[in-house]
Amino acid sequence: MKLICTQENLKKAIYNCERAVAKRNTLPILNNILFETKKGGLKLSATNLEIGVSSQIGAKIEEEGRITVPARLISGLSNNLLNGENIALESDGDILKIENKTNKTSIKGISAGDFPLIPSRKGAHLLELEVADFKKATTNVLMAVAINEARQELTGVNISLKTDELLFAATDSFRLAEYKIKLKEDSINKELYLPFIEKHENIIIPASTLMEFNRMVTDEDNFKVKIAIEEGQIFFEMNNIELVSRLIEGKYPQYEYIMPKEYKTRIVGERKIFQQALKTAGLFSLGGSNEITLKIDAETKNVFVHASSAETGENSAELKFDITGPSQEIVFNVKYLLDGINIISTDQVAIFANSEATPVAIREIDEKSGEVLGNFIYIAMPIKN
Amino acid sequence: MKLICTQENLKKAIYNCERAVAKRNTLPILNNILFETKKGGLKLSATNLEIGVSSQIGAKIEEEGRITVPARLISGLSNNLLNGENIALESDGDILKIENKTNKTSIKGISAGDFPLIPSRKGAHLLELEVADFKKATTNVLMAVAINEARQELTGVNISLKTDELLFAATDSFRLAEYKIKLKEDSINKELYLPFIEKHENIIIPASTLMEFNRMVTDEDNFKVKIAIEEGQIFFEMNNIELVSRLIEGKYPQYEYIMPKEYKTRIVGERKIFQQALKTAGLFSLGGSNEITLKIDAETKNVFVHASSAETGENSAELKFDITGPSQEIVFNVKYLLDGINIISTDQVAIFANSEATPVAIREIDEKSGEVLGNFIYIAMPIKN
Repeated sequence: MKLICTQENLKKAIYNCERAVAKRNTLPILNNILFETKKGGLKLSATNLEIGVSSQIGAKIEEEGRITVPARLISGLSNNLLNGENIALESDGDILKIENKTNKTSIKGISAGDFPLIPSRKGAHLLELEVADFKKATTNVLMAVAINEARQELTGVNISLKTDELLFAATDSFRLAEYKIKLKEDSINKELYLPFIEKHENIIIPASTLMEFNRMVTDEDNFKVKIAIEEGQIFFEMNNIELVSRLIEGKYPQYEYIMPKEYKTRIVGERKIFQQALKTAGLFSLGGSNEITLKIDAETKNVFVHASSAETGENSAELKFDITGPSQEIVFNVKYLLDGINIISTDQVAIFANSEATPVAIREIDEKSGEVLGNFIYIAMPIKN
Repeated sequence: MKLICTQENLKKAIYNCERAVAKRNTLPILNNILFETKKGGLKLSATNLEIGVSSQIGAKIEEEGRITVPARLISGLSNNLLNGENIALESDGDILKIENKTNKTSIKGISAGDFPLIPSRKGAHLLELEVADFKKATTNVLMAVAINEARQELTGVNISLKTDELLFAATDSFRLAEYKIKLKEDSINKELYLPFIEKHENIIIPASTLMEFNRMVTDEDNFKVKIAIEEGQIFFEMNNIELVSRLIEGKYPQYEYIMPKEYKTRIVGERKIFQQALKTAGLFSLGGSNEITLKIDAETKNVFVHASSAETGENSAELKFDITGPSQEIVFNVKYLLDGINIISTDQVAIFANSEATPVAIREIDEKSGEVLGNFIYIAMPIKN
């Protein structure tokens, strides 16, 4: 392998691949990034056997070839490269030589023959989505994913595949977040997608895969991502990056049954004020369950957030919120309410409740119309006394 | 105790005190902040018995008094307070009640009678310095302080007290940093300072005290700090904050003897390029001593930074620097060179060397004149082969 590329492109490709590299893996080759000439350019790949990432960049190829080098070294090296200069890469046996104007490096690598095969897409894509929409949807539900859960399926984000929308959901059984993306006509490859969703109502993507995906996308990116699903694998393609991940097998809980169809009580108020009241109450709700009480008083038109413990003392906030419906008094783990409030991106927030024993819903409010926004819902279970 | 103050002032005072609170201390009162009415205002104090911090703010006092409350709770509470509002504080036995427009809190405290006495200054100040100068001086030497050192005196910053200057120094015996502040006429309380330095050539301030001091000062602050030294304690006073710390007893090493008086070889070049070359070489210098070689070639007028190891491969940078004097080849722990380069604030850096077995000096270069700046010097010991 012998080639020349820009330092800027090389840095980006390494950045995209480096986190897919296995951490503390006993198989040394999984700590490495694969460099190979492909399609007249340079392709970098990394995998931890759960996900695989490839990044293709332009390069002037003088000699075809393949080699793998430790991600730690090549990434450290690339962090010190300046934009606007070229860099030459040349393999010599298992050594990769890297040279720019001032710097000559030889990195000990491992033969590319030992690098595991990363699955590649065979058929066409099912979907093509705005990458910003996909990132927003996953960001809004990831905080509700179960960590280290015995039930594998709860460690991923569920996507219910409908003809006209995708429903992203995550739950650890204490709370649930759901975000909806409307599918546009041109987002669907109809010939494939419609037969596919007849057989597959949903898929479950590992949370770690989606966090890795989101890391590679900045909030300003406005390109599209193509999605294919084949043989228990999901393929993402965007902007010269390919990410492939296993899907989680298993049956996702039918969470729609625990979501109340309607609510008796609704409060609306400033998100920031509610957030501060919860944070402060959280300080006084010591103990494993972080209990705080939300009291909605329909008579006095006040919302109270209250917490107390024998060790710390007590705290109580009185909030002037709009209240419709009957009074309520519900006990929560403050952490689960806060996770929901923290992800709300509108200035006003709405809380819906029915009773002390049923879930509440947290929703966004459109600034202009004052209406509840339909695409996001966060559900928190109360603590039953 | 009963009073009203602004939330903004209370937040600042808590911020200034909270880090002086003892960490994981078995004596519960040391986890608390003392609130007391004083001089017609409110004074907050905290101590871990090594350092003590007090912060005085304006308040409308309705009833004098004292109480202590856990720093963790009052600090958490204050983080959620908004600027521009008033807050009422009232003690009721060992309970502190805190109330603003929306929030009522009762914190379980401990009687102020159990709070340790923080030493207070008896005489006048010795020195009055620009706080920015003092922060710059300590920041420039703190990275060379020894960590967990059996020799207590090396865990502090030494200040040599001269009639017309202060010399700040720190060393862990592998490297040394020294920063000079010129004393202006009006910085000295002559009647006290001159007799004091006849008896005391130097003082040693714990590194942790200076880090705490620097945290309380922003880079924009342009007030002065008054300094007094009494009975093994140093007192800092600025902007309604008082910080008192024990001094470290012991004899500081006479480091001036290991600083070469003159140097044969001098190289000057761009700091950033040298920094990058060292960082990159560091990746290839595995092992406990992080060995890299600095080669100054007076013939070809090149500076080489080189590292290699059996595990990683090798790296070599060729830098076009100005060289005066004979060639040199010196082996370093790259970490010690980098610590020096990282603190350099000028675009150009100068390195001075004599031989493979003697220390090198790293210095700043004035952008306009091209001359070496006199107030800062960083010395690194080579690794002797």
